[in-house]
Amino acid sequence: MTAVAPATPRLVDIDAIRDAAERIRPYAVRTPLLPSPWPGLWLKPENLQAIGAFKIRGAATAISRLDPEVRARGVLAHSSGNHAQAVAFVARAFGIDAHIVIPDNAPERKIRATRDLGATVELVPVAERFSRPLELQAQTGKAMIPPFDHPDIVAGQGTVGLEIVEDFPSTPGADGPVETILVPVSGGGLISGVAAAVAALLPDVKVVGVEPALAGDAAESLRTGRRVAWEPADTARTVADGLRTFSIGELPWQHISTQVHDIVTVSEEEILDATRELALRARLLAEPSGAVSVAAYLHHADRLPGGRTVAVVSGGNIDPALLGRLLTQP
Amino acid sequence: MTAVAPATPRLVDIDAIRDAAERIRPYAVRTPLLPSPWPGLWLKPENLQAIGAFKIRGAATAISRLDPEVRARGVLAHSSGNHAQAVAFVARAFGIDAHIVIPDNAPERKIRATRDLGATVELVPVAERFSRPLELQAQTGKAMIPPFDHPDIVAGQGTVGLEIVEDFPSTPGADGPVETILVPVSGGGLISGVAAAVAALLPDVKVVGVEPALAGDAAESLRTGRRVAWEPADTARTVADGLRTFSIGELPWQHISTQVHDIVTVSEEEILDATRELALRARLLAEPSGAVSVAAYLHHADRLPGGRTVAVVSGGNIDPALLGRLLTQP
Repeated sequence: MTAVAPATPRLVDIDAIRDAAERIRPYAVRTPLLPSPWPGLWLKPENLQAIGAFKIRGAATAISRLDPEVRARGVLAHSSGNHAQAVAFVARAFGIDAHIVIPDNAPERKIRATRDLGATVELVPVAERFSRPLELQAQTGKAMIPPFDHPDIVAGQGTVGLEIVEDFPSTPGADGPVETILVPVSGGGLISGVAAAVAALLPDVKVVGVEPALAGDAAESLRTGRRVAWEPADTARTVADGLRTFSIGELPWQHISTQVHDIVTVSEEEILDATRELALRARLLAEPSGAVSVAAYLHHADRLPGGRTVAVVSGGNIDPALLGRLLTQP
Repeated sequence: MTAVAPATPRLVDIDAIRDAAERIRPYAVRTPLLPSPWPGLWLKPENLQAIGAFKIRGAATAISRLDPEVRARGVLAHSSGNHAQAVAFVARAFGIDAHIVIPDNAPERKIRATRDLGATVELVPVAERFSRPLELQAQTGKAMIPPFDHPDIVAGQGTVGLEIVEDFPSTPGADGPVETILVPVSGGGLISGVAAAVAALLPDVKVVGVEPALAGDAAESLRTGRRVAWEPADTARTVADGLRTFSIGELPWQHISTQVHDIVTVSEEEILDATRELALRARLLAEPSGAVSVAAYLHHADRLPGGRTVAVVSGGNIDPALLGRLLTQP
């Protein structure tokens, strides 16, 4: 027997992203690029998707690429957030079952939103949130739709980058090419797809990840050159509940380590300030996780490459009580 | 001498709207059609325009059509609301002066927003809000940009209808043609343009106006077959401050009386409920005036033609304190 080196995942290429763009069309909105109140910044508002987040792109790509016989058995996912709603939404559109495993400490609001989309929701103790879906997969033969570490997911999220490249030249106020794209980072599926699209089409554009300082595992990984994991108890401290993933995925790491210019971190106050400013000045309802890109632009311009910049506002599923407080406090 | 019948304004046609679509491209966002949380309803979110309202379309059309020598002298407008910001925004983009006359009882927030766009703001007693601009026009030779009663304004706002017709077939979830379009009515510029576009391109589609019952002059006009004016003191009672105009314009009346299927009215509670629902469920920040179309869909489906429906959400410049209250109240 010959020793086999561990396989390095193959990078997602532009053909896969273009294929995804065709596949997602019946489900995902082609969100516009919006001029913002801040000179030099445009916004890509993924909070306008039907489920309020970009996750619908990856879910639609992955589910549409399943073998029809496999797909007919339904799909599985585990998530306490926007991925759950994305899988439920797309499964309903395909007329198949979605079985979603959610940790029993997830907010009631998110559980209800997933149920309202017709999914079977199974609440499990946090310790079983990864093992239970695998058990279900073995028992039911349902396909697992992973949240980020899969080429179909990366290709689907990459349509965000493809659209930015295609649409920027004709967006109001654009007086030249896009130079920097700011992308929230959690598991890394979104930034990987965006970076893959940009690397193929406009390689001079700098893709910069943004994450909360309290969940800064991706920034540390890029700085140290190896994929590190943080303690879940640590990443759980940030208000940006969509960015609490404690490590980026293996495939995303391949993209991030080769195609991403930098990853910067923002403070909790900066995240809340950006969330409030987006509502008050740009009339966009973002969740804190979706506003980190704008937080970097507003508070850390010195750490960014500069030039004409697009910030991806990745989602809008904010707790209404938090939003109300942000809008009424002085 | 021969008696001359009063001239009936010529209806705006589809060629003028197509011309406007080209002219507004550097200034106005082509807003997407969004699937909504309510089955059968899609949203046209004009609150996403840079100034937070559709008014930028008419202003850009009118200013771009001015003779360049006239335009170089600057423009005039009177408004206490979104039209003021639209004229200021487009004038700045053209590098010309905007002189905006605003009644001195207008909210400080709106005055500041117009000043922030670089316009010269002149506050006048309410009684002088129409006479002072005419005086200025005579003195300065600046062109007046009217808020609704002008073919360029109607053509510009008509691009909303053109985009709905063009984009509906490819919008997520659309399983057939659009059948009804709901449009907020104030001076009537927006609904006139939408009705003109639809009458030319998809004459089976029913365009329905919506206004607050407290400012129901357009509904009464359509019902009685003659353009009526309400007392400003009466229309001022509605929370929908963009729809307090006490009479539709003469040109809009020609469109409304021939191309609009119906005008329905909604209550103040229905308007506030729709504003809240748009924020909580569709993640759209609408001002009450912009939410009346959705209020009709949610509360008066029985009075609407039905079928696949688009509601134009015409603006998003809501008072933050009001929004905060709507989000935090039970």
